[in-house]
Amino acid sequence: MKKAVILLSGGLDSTTCMSIADKEGYELYPISFDYGQRHTRELEAAKSVAKFYQVNEHRIFHIDNVGGSALTDPSIQVPEYKEDGEIPVTYVPARNILFLSYALGYAEVIAAEAIYIGISSVDYSGYPDCRPEFLEAFQKVAMVGTKMGVQGQPIQIKAPLIQLSKADTIRLATQNGAPLHLSTSCYRGGEKACGTCDSCTLRLRGFAEAGITDPINYY
Amino acid sequence: MKKAVILLSGGLDSTTCMSIADKEGYELYPISFDYGQRHTRELEAAKSVAKFYQVNEHRIFHIDNVGGSALTDPSIQVPEYKEDGEIPVTYVPARNILFLSYALGYAEVIAAEAIYIGISSVDYSGYPDCRPEFLEAFQKVAMVGTKMGVQGQPIQIKAPLIQLSKADTIRLATQNGAPLHLSTSCYRGGEKACGTCDSCTLRLRGFAEAGITDPINYY
Repeated sequence: MKKAVILLSGGLDSTTCMSIADKEGYELYPISFDYGQRHTRELEAAKSVAKFYQVNEHRIFHIDNVGGSALTDPSIQVPEYKEDGEIPVTYVPARNILFLSYALGYAEVIAAEAIYIGISSVDYSGYPDCRPEFLEAFQKVAMVGTKMGVQGQPIQIKAPLIQLSKADTIRLATQNGAPLHLSTSCYRGGEKACGTCDSCTLRLRGFAEAGITDPINYY
Repeated sequence: MKKAVILLSGGLDSTTCMSIADKEGYELYPISFDYGQRHTRELEAAKSVAKFYQVNEHRIFHIDNVGGSALTDPSIQVPEYKEDGEIPVTYVPARNILFLSYALGYAEVIAAEAIYIGISSVDYSGYPDCRPEFLEAFQKVAMVGTKMGVQGQPIQIKAPLIQLSKADTIRLATQNGAPLHLSTSCYRGGEKACGTCDSCTLRLRGFAEAGITDPINYY
């Protein structure tokens, strides 16, 4: 059975990616990261999603925090959602680059054909590492910088949500039976979701636009 | 003062990079990695080299081992040097990709202009992530995938040894007064260097070709 590594944060997008890779017939190898994020509830959500799909292995990699982000530095406050086109302070330097690097190394070790990453360039926070240019550049790295790549079997980096709006993603997830009730998106990591940070705002708008009720709890 | 992040393994090449970045007027921010490598003596060497240059900060990042290499898996033996054009079992999946990803994140946090990596495509072990194509692909990732990149100040990935033979590197290091006596290259990580693994073989050949005596001890 062909294998895929899924970057699983426990959020809405990565949970949807699990459902897509599953439908596409891959054996799922989700990986998650503990990088000092405030929202460690995400890791619990990731574990629940992995369990839902009855995966054989769910690796959690610990990453030393390089600093510089509201998501990892308690002295920087998580802001309310703003639509000003700026990269917000929740940007974690080189986060997706780091995540994909681990995914590549792990994919080589288990001989996986593909890596799924739930980035979208439509409803997103303006992070540079969520755009198609980034994806293309990283695919090139996988082609020329790994053993599988130079041996003519490059690992495919798949970002099936890259052109989807949040509403489209929610519709697709629902269609695929993805366990959105187990996912969590809030940056603040409280008992319930805050409903006002970037991530909650985009999620709630998406559900509203899709005409579907968000199954998780908010304050 | 302009800052540079130096990938410092404690080996010959990265020690030479320290001397080059120093000559080029950068404030040095070496980073090293503990990734479960056999040769943890390298980390001690890295600390000594950092101390020699009186750096303000030397970060050591712990990386969870993804497996699959003789350098990190005790059940795979480190082989003797072979000139067969194959990628050896000492290849660590996605290692330089992972190292550069950490370097990028850290460089963004401290606002460094450059990252130095001591890869060479001349006298090397045949690893895909030591070639100019790889370097170019990763530079593109730094340009499109980071905040500094999209803001028009991409971090420069510098590989000053990429076209140098080991002998050239040794000559340059000697000219720059690099502390090669503090460096270590052996993959086996014994009390003294083995002199027969890939890394020792390339090092010893280089010193012989340069007509310089290697200041470190061998069995």
